[in-house]
This record gives sequence, structure tokens and C-alpha cells, in this order.
Amino acid sequence: MATATSRPPLRTAIATVCISGTLEDKLAAAAAAGFDGVEIFEPDFVVSSSSAREVRQRCADLGLSIDLYQPFRDFDSTDPAQVELNLRRADRKFDVMEALGTDLILVCSAVSPTAVDDNAVIAEQLHRLAERARQRGMRISYEALAWGTKVNTYDRSWDIVRAADHPALGVCLDSFHILSRGSDPAGIEQIPGEKIFFLQLADAPFMNMDVLQWSRHHRLFPEQGTFDLPAFLGHVLTAGYTGPLSLEVFNDVFRQSDPGRAAVDAHRSLLALYESTVGSVPLDRAGSVTGDSGAVGTSGSDRQVPPAPELGGFAFAELAVDDESGPAVAATLSCLGFVHSGQHRSKPVQLWSQGDARVLLNAARGLDEHPTGAAVAAIGFETRDPAAAAVRAQAMLAPLLPRRVGAGEADLSAVAAPDETAVFFCRTGAADASSWIGDFEPTAAAAGTSPLGLRRIDHVALTQPYDRFDEASLFFRCVLGLPTRHSSEIAAPFGLVRNRTAANVDGSVRIGMTVSVLRRGGQWAPGVTDPQHVAFATDDIVAAARAAVAAGAPVLPVPANYYDDLDARLALPAEQLAALRELNLLYDRTSDGEFWHFYTAVLGGRVFFEVVQRIGDYQGYGEVNSPVRMAAHRRQRRATTSISS
Amino acid sequence: MATATSRPPLRTAIATVCISGTLEDKLAAAAAAGFDGVEIFEPDFVVSSSSAREVRQRCADLGLSIDLYQPFRDFDSTDPAQVELNLRRADRKFDVMEALGTDLILVCSAVSPTAVDDNAVIAEQLHRLAERARQRGMRISYEALAWGTKVNTYDRSWDIVRAADHPALGVCLDSFHILSRGSDPAGIEQIPGEKIFFLQLADAPFMNMDVLQWSRHHRLFPEQGTFDLPAFLGHVLTAGYTGPLSLEVFNDVFRQSDPGRAAVDAHRSLLALYESTVGSVPLDRAGSVTGDSGAVGTSGSDRQVPPAPELGGFAFAELAVDDESGPAVAATLSCLGFVHSGQHRSKPVQLWSQGDARVLLNAARGLDEHPTGAAVAAIGFETRDPAAAAVRAQAMLAPLLPRRVGAGEADLSAVAAPDETAVFFCRTGAADASSWIGDFEPTAAAAGTSPLGLRRIDHVALTQPYDRFDEASLFFRCVLGLPTRHSSEIAAPFGLVRNRTAANVDGSVRIGMTVSVLRRGGQWAPGVTDPQHVAFATDDIVAAARAAVAAGAPVLPVPANYYDDLDARLALPAEQLAALRELNLLYDRTSDGEFWHFYTAVLGGRVFFEVVQRIGDYQGYGEVNSPVRMAAHRRQRRATTSISS
Repeated sequence: MATATSRPPLRTAIATVCISGTLEDKLAAAAAAGFDGVEIFEPDFVVSSSSAREVRQRCADLGLSIDLYQPFRDFDSTDPAQVELNLRRADRKFDVMEALGTDLILVCSAVSPTAVDDNAVIAEQLHRLAERARQRGMRISYEALAWGTKVNTYDRSWDIVRAADHPALGVCLDSFHILSRGSDPAGIEQIPGEKIFFLQLADAPFMNMDVLQWSRHHRLFPEQGTFDLPAFLGHVLTAGYTGPLSLEVFNDVFRQSDPGRAAVDAHRSLLALYESTVGSVPLDRAGSVTGDSGAVGTSGSDRQVPPAPELGGFAFAELAVDDESGPAVAATLSCLGFVHSGQHRSKPVQLWSQGDARVLLNAARGLDEHPTGAAVAAIGFETRDPAAAAVRAQAMLAPLLPRRVGAGEADLSAVAAPDETAVFFCRTGAADASSWIGDFEPTAAAAGTSPLGLRRIDHVALTQPYDRFDEASLFFRCVLGLPTRHSSEIAAPFGLVRNRTAANVDGSVRIGMTVSVLRRGGQWAPGVTDPQHVAFATDDIVAAARAAVAAGAPVLPVPANYYDDLDARLALPAEQLAALRELNLLYDRTSDGEFWHFYTAVLGGRVFFEVVQRIGDYQGYGEVNSPVRMAAHRRQRRATTSISS
Repeated sequence: MATATSRPPLRTAIATVCISGTLEDKLAAAAAAGFDGVEIFEPDFVVSSSSAREVRQRCADLGLSIDLYQPFRDFDSTDPAQVELNLRRADRKFDVMEALGTDLILVCSAVSPTAVDDNAVIAEQLHRLAERARQRGMRISYEALAWGTKVNTYDRSWDIVRAADHPALGVCLDSFHILSRGSDPAGIEQIPGEKIFFLQLADAPFMNMDVLQWSRHHRLFPEQGTFDLPAFLGHVLTAGYTGPLSLEVFNDVFRQSDPGRAAVDAHRSLLALYESTVGSVPLDRAGSVTGDSGAVGTSGSDRQVPPAPELGGFAFAELAVDDESGPAVAATLSCLGFVHSGQHRSKPVQLWSQGDARVLLNAARGLDEHPTGAAVAAIGFETRDPAAAAVRAQAMLAPLLPRRVGAGEADLSAVAAPDETAVFFCRTGAADASSWIGDFEPTAAAAGTSPLGLRRIDHVALTQPYDRFDEASLFFRCVLGLPTRHSSEIAAPFGLVRNRTAANVDGSVRIGMTVSVLRRGGQWAPGVTDPQHVAFATDDIVAAARAAVAAGAPVLPVPANYYDDLDARLALPAEQLAALRELNLLYDRTSDGEFWHFYTAVLGGRVFFEVVQRIGDYQGYGEVNSPVRMAAHRRQRRATTSISS
């Protein structure tokens, strides 16, 4: 690994194929996200009404270099006439490149039935091509596709380039093509850095499927999948590669998302990968740092992006409420043992607390931003250095949210998570402006011991827009230092749901992310939404549930069939089963431990609460029970809104 | 194959897992679609608040039998203590089945690490289970999962059942588990029919991927995928199976679609499969036949559903237009050489014609049903026996559309295609009511020779709702006798697009179906819609294009980059390239032939026109050029609506 003093250059690029839209849309998005350059993906250029010269000018105006033109397919051939046609085709593409002002083209290994199998013959044909390129001041970057008919490993592509021995011919390395085949990337260090003409980076989830389909539809941006890209990039940098780090990601979701948003996600992934590989990111190469706070904003070439914060727990969860949902949420919190312990000095915000669990009810945010009634609007995270965490968040391209601060009130900067939830960095109880809690005037309500014994927030579960799920995972990992630690897929009553949890090492912060993979809301079942929730931890779930029921909490009813099945599956002791059944508790167990939990009804919008007890080292969230919860919430919806299908 | 006289029974069933919603939603949908019975998928029951007795009563009220309770997993075990726990678990499930009033449970082969590998041991354990079942009047249906740890082929499951030799133990055959592994289903004929306790049917597209994921997410209803299910079912019937034909389809799209609609699609698939296997479907077992026409409506046990019609071409394409789009569409048709040759006697509908190409512009349908301006509202198909085609359509569960008929006008019944396009069966020029054309008063416009020489409609391309694509394929195959003959996938500028074409043998009727796999409309790019179009055939595309341009048709501009690429790729003769370039023509060629075509702008809504010339035996639609078309339409949208991203 390179040290900070000999840090390799950080130049970023993106292939236009990664994002949605016309070529013009894509260039604008790449520039706005801070990329240094682009690869022009030929089909994007072919459908554009902009000439090559116009594209060149547009890129210059946007401050983008054109680092590569790609792809040139099926060059080598056992058919000599076809080779001549292919050389003619290349000449036409050199014309385009000349007008674009780029000198590098990607030639990928042939997939045609006439592909050559003899390295010497391929080398000879590539040598001819490279010589034609050289005469026009251009260069050829040869890449082994993972599904090339004959050439499909990087070491074979390098053998051929070495044999061709032409100054205008080098290799292009693509992490997907190499890692998807299980090739050992360590051998890359044997390739002279100056012969690695280009580097394309892509991650991917592990999938046991045809590699061509995997590549064309399911690639991800770095740090979003399962490939060890820091190790891969380390080998490439050790070899002496000094060119751009360029993304080439084919992904069906990114292909149709807002390109501005996807480009930011993409650029963040490169910053995160560089940091993981090299150790740190220069602040002047990261996202622009702006904001109201005078503490940050300048950058020098020797300043680094602060490392990811070590979060110490939840400071608060803030719910947006309106006139209708506010009282319902407050009443439920009261039944769950919370007290209204503070009132904001300048805004219509209530603080409800119990132990270290704190919930803010904000009636000012409810109307415009959260039209659904009640919703999770913000999360406060405890961290020792909120200012550094905010600098990092902005450097890692998290959008800064505007904030109105009253005189003498805490000045917390907030950034928007991918689902628009506001993220605050706090130091609750600190003597400075980072403690938000001083903004609240204590009420007369006694903060005595609650019979429920809720200690803290266990997790907050956020529903993600379907095309921001991978972006959200990267955001929580990169901005908040919360890697994905748990993932699952649930065949729920109204469609497939994927879950991931981002959490810190000690489990004091857990963020659940859920996404309805195909469903987009209640098309046929208008009572079905994808609600968010806040879960509180207790050490005695049975006592907590009894107290909640006694206080009149709207505990979600669980059907008898569930307990009959639990009995059949797990043969629990009779008293345990009776307690579960009596109190509408749900249950899960693994080899690591047990999970007991209960839910409330959905409260006037898209929020509900959960109370959980973890026993042993159980790391999940009782996802196996979520279909029970969804069906029960649906029944409540129907009962209260008379929706019927 | 069984003959009509010895026709096997047609009883239909569906596993509740196939469709979306709560158990109550699913039962209602299955009954409404005409199924005789259901398999209760256990997770659907577990999340339900209805007790087993209530479910039993509900099914009885709906006229549904409960044919199977499923699945019971991981029964056999190398751990004797686990076997005892599993027998206890089975006893609890027998309790549920007793209350449900069903006697058959599905036990699938074990996938656990403790699965037994010795047939004799598995047989002994299953014998114990079967004996317990027998004592309660129940039976066990043993199925080999394709990914069972040890037992994963149907012949091994039969070997085990035979060895266990218990009257309450038989096999369950699932077409997916058998065909996905490439097993030869002919051996099924060696199993005594009475030992085949249950039959589960599912189709699937060919996918080179992990069989578990393939099964859990991508199964399809019969006749929607690539399995040879008629051959499979033939073997099962030859063996003597007399139980229900039951669907078990896990599909991410169906899982979240309107269950009422999905159940109809599902039932249609079984009727189609039965017809393909046995030769015909008794009319009284198909969908209920109702309608205004007195010619049909009664059914006898010896009457058969008429075979699929042999379509002879397009009678017309009908566009809904409004005050704004109507003149624009009419003007464009005029530029394309059509004349306004008729006016409907009682409705604001114009007939425009050229050769055998006829387009109706209907200003009465435009406002309520098609709020987007102009849209394809209906298609008329030529057939020799429109009444029989209508009987079949309704028997195959196509929804009959209401129709207002004026005195003395043609009385055509219409059914709705999955995308809501009305489908009419016509006999243009017939002396009876099946000729619609007599409803139009000829105008004074000369129907002389057009310089464009458009002869007929080549194809109509319909955009499908994303969750009705497979339903649409089955509809066109089953109701109209148009199997899918061509399919492709296009990485278009705004996301992945899949195309299929349903066509008859002589190509006189071709329906294009396109679907945006993930995109749901213009989230980030509000100018992007998924327009439909009507394509007209000519024998001289160059002359047609020149005439259209001379007449001022809004021919879609094609970027110069496209022609440069065409030149590079295909090295066309210079005159051909010049003609293409001059006239904004697009081009494709395969080993079968060539395709020349041009498009118009989108006309005031979501409709455009295309003019095509097929040379040789070219069967495609120039899909390779559709990204060029989409980007060009987007530019036009932006230019006229000032939408910018």
C-alpha cells in the first residue's frame, strides 16, 4: 500500500454508460458530481445530435477530459477480409476520436465465432492496428472480456500485448472481468505500469449466474458489492499505473435513475475506494466544502478528509408530525413510558424521553416535506467531533441541508441521507454548541422510572426509494462509518422486500434499510405503504409489553396461526409460548441468540414503533416476522379506512 | 395424447403463493378467476387472522376446494432426535389440515445438512410419517426439490416412495423441479397414476443461473416460458394422473401485481396448456361466456372452445384523439399519402385509408379513456369467423368491452388486451354485420394512387404496463393465435427496454410489445414517455420518404453520428448511404435480409408513425435503431415543451 507521502494521483472518470439519459445529460451530470473526465461510450455518441467537435467543446466547457472512447469490438479475426474491414472500421473511429480530441480507444477481446486463438496472430493483427493508431497520434488499450471466445483473462491479454510489442498498444484492466472469473489480481503487479493504459472499476454482488448477464445488468459502483476492490486497486497502483480511476458500471437501476444523483453516488464510491486503498483522500480532491460554518471551507493540498466518525449511539430520532398525527404519536409514546420532558425554545418541537431514548416531535416540518402525516424526518448521531464528521460528510458529497438557527441555539449542520432523512452529528450534553439538548426548555413532567424500562433506540428503519438502495448502503458506510452488517430478502404479502442493516461494531447504532424491489406504492392495494419505524431496546420485553398494554398502547395484534406455527417449529416451553401469545409478542432465534419484539399500529402516517429485547448475540431484526407485521398493518388500514380490494 | 372422447378431467388449482396480497385477497381472486381449488401456501396462512375453520368456510363459500397444504420442509434427518421433533411438527400441521378440511400435505426433499442420503432410511422415515397421516385420514405427497441436498430428481423421489410402500404416501411432481434440471420427463409414464398424488405446473424462461434463485424469482405461468409443458403434461396424463392441474409459480412481478388480474392470467395459462396438450377445452370448463350477442352464451359438455382464429391481416388501427391531437394526426396521415375516405354515420370517427392500410381517428374516445392526447385505442383484425373468435376470446377469459351500436351498424364484440387496447374481430367487406366499414359514409376524397405507396399496416407496437408483459404474450398467443416470434432487449437511453413480437405465420399480423423493465414513467426525465406506434409497409422506402418529405411530413431527424457509425460498421455502397442520410432513414440487416425505415415525430400525445420496407426474409423491427429514435423523440419533446433536466 502506498503511503500518504507517496500517494498516487487521484483522477476520477466515469463511462457515460453508467448513468441515464442522453449524452448531454450524462456529461452535465458527471461534471456536476466532480468527475475529472469521462469515457465516451460509443452508443451514447451515436444517438446524439451533437457532433464530435461539439462534444469536445462541451466537455471543455464543463472541465471534463475525454479519457477513452469505447468499445471497439471483435477486431481480430481468422478471416483476412474481415481484418481489412475491421481496420477500415477503426480508421472511421479514429476520425471520430480526432474530432473528440481523445487519443485512447478500448479494443476488447473478440466474442465472434471467427475470433483468433493463436496469441502470435492476435498480436500481429493488433500490431497493425496500433501502428495505424500511432500514425494518427492515438493509442490502443486491449481488454480481455470475461466471456471472450478465446481471450478472457487479463494475463492472456498482457501476453498478447507484450508479444505485439508496440508503443501504442497497452492493456486495459477491468475489475469486473478479472474478479468475476476468480482470477488472482496479484499478477497485475508484474505488468509494467506504463503498459496499463487504462483502468476500469466496477463492483458487483456475488451472483451465481451467467457472467455476461451478471456484467450487463448487475454491476455496482465500488464499495457497493462484494469484490475486494481495495486489494485490486492496490495491485494496480503497485504496478505503477498513474492514469484515471474510471468507472464502468452496467446496472439496470442506475441506467434509469436521475443521472445527477447517480453521478454523485458514483463519485462518492471512487472517493471511498481510494480512501480504503490508500488510507486517506486529499480534501481538495473531494467534494467541495461549503456551508454556513466558518470552521471549514478552505482546503489545502496537504489536508485530508477526516476519517469516518465513530458513532456512540443515537442522540435522537425526529418525527415530522401534523395536527392529526402529532397527538396520536404523543399518546403512543406516553403509553410506551416516555415523558414529554422538553419543549424547544423557538420551534414547535417536543422532546420525549425515557432513559437514553429520545424522540423529537416536530410539528413545523410536517406539512410541506412530509405530506403523509407522520414520518421519520431526522436522526441525531452521537459523535465526539461533530465538526469533523460534518466536514467528511460534505467532502463525501452528502448534500448539506439549510438550517434555521435561533439566537443562542445549537448550530448543528445536517446532511441529507439518500431517502432525504436529515442526519445530524451531535454531542449531547457537551458544553458547546454541539449539544442540541440545551435548545429545549425542561418541562414539569417527572422523568422518573418508567415501568417499560426502554433504555435507548435499538434501530431506526428507513424505507428507501427503490433506486437508491445501493446508494444508501454506500452513504451509511462512507459518510457515517456504518458498513452493511446484515442483509435479507423477504417474500412479503405485497411483494419482495430487501433489507440491509448498517451498524457500528458495538451495535449502538443500527440503521435498517428496506426496499420494495418492484412495488412502487399501493397500485392495487392502496392501503399498503412502506412505513418506517423506530425500535426501542428493553431488558425485559415481557414486563414492557404488559406495561404497554396496561397503559393502552396500540399494540399490533398477532394472529393465533402465528403462535401455532411457532409451537410446531420451535417447541418452545409452554410458559414462553403462553407469554408470547398473551402479549402479541413475536419471536426469532438463531444459533447466536434470541429476539423478542412487539410492534404498534401505524400512527397517522407512515411511522410505527417497535420494542425489542436482544438475548445473547442475536444480530438480526426479526425480519422473518415482518410478513406477519405487514399483514396485520394491512388489516388495521382496512379497518380504519374501509379500503377493500 | 388422449383423444377428445377419452379426455382427461380438467380441474384447475392455484397455490396461493402465486399471487399477491393477504390470504383473503388470494382466495377471492382465485375464485373470481374460475379456479376449482387452491393449494394453501403455509406462510400465507400463518400471517392470516382467519382461523383454519374460517378459511375452510371461506373456501366453501367461494366454491374452492383446498387441494393441498404446503410445504413441509426438511423432514428426513440423520439425527434421530430431529426426526422425533419433525414428527411432532407434522402432528401440529395435521391439526391445521384437519381444521382446514384438507387431507394432502406436500413434503419436499430435505435441503438441510442433516439430510439423509440412504433411500432405505428416507423411506423408513417417510413410512412412519405416512402411517401417522393415515391414522388421521391424511396423505403425504413427496417432492424432490431441484436443489435438495440428496434427493433432487423425480426418479429418486419415486424410488423412495416405492420402497416405503405405504398407501398414504405418493409423489408430487413439479414441472419446474424436473425440467429445470434437464431431466427427461418421459420416465414419468412408468409411475402408476394413482401414486402421483399431486401435480404442480410452472413454466420459466431459460436462464443460466443458480436454480434456487431461478425458481424463487423467475417462474412463469404455463405457455409464458420456454419449457415444453404440453409434452410434460402429456407424460403425466399418460401415467394416469387424474388430480387437479395446479400452478405453483414464484415470480417477483406476479407477487406484487393486482391478484385479481394475475389469477385470470394464471387460469388462462392452464386452459391454454390443457388445449395444447389434449387438443381442445370443453366450453363449460372455460371462462363464462356472456355478452350481448345471443349467438353464444349457452354451453354443453360436448361443446369445445373454438380454436385460435387464423388472422388475415389488420382491418384497422384506431387512434383516440382529442381536439388538439386530432388535427395533428390527420395532417400527418395526409402527408403520408392517406386520404380521409369515410366518416362514421353516428360517431365522430374518421376513416383514413391508403391501399389496405386503414386508420380510424376517434374523437369520442379521447377524453376519458386516453387522457394523454393521442393513443392507440383499438385494433381490428381480419378473420373469417369473427363470432367464433369472440367466443374463444371470452372463453379464454378476455374481458368483454361494452359497446354502443347505432341502428343498422356493425355489431362487433370487442375484448380488452392486457394494456386495455380494444381488440375487434372483423370481416371487412363481408355482407353481414361483421363488416365494420359500412358504418362509414364515403367522403368525396379521391382514393387515387398515393405517391408513398403504403400498402398495409406492417405492425402495431403497444407499450405494456411493466407487470403485464408476460400476460400480454400469453394473451396474444392464446386469444389471437399469435405466438411470440421475436424478442430482444435494448439498453435504451432512459433504461432497459424489452421487446417481443407476436405474429402469425405469414407475417400479415405483427404486434410489438415493449416494456420498460424498471422505469415507471418520467421520474427524472418528464419528457420521456413510452409511445406507441403504427408502422406501414411500402415496397419503395426511398420513394415513400421523398414523397413524405415533399408533403411536409414531420419525419424524425436522425443524427449524422448514426450514419458515420453505419458507414464504419457496414461499409454500405456510397449511394445507399447518401440516400439514408438525406432522407433520415434508418437501416438494419441480418443474414435474413434488410430493413429500411423512418419515423415521424410523436404526435400530440403518445403516438407516432413508422414507414418500413422489408427486404428478403428480415423478421425484426429495427430494434437496434430504437435508441436513436428515443433520443431523437426526447430532443423534440425538449424543443417543444422546454423541459430540461
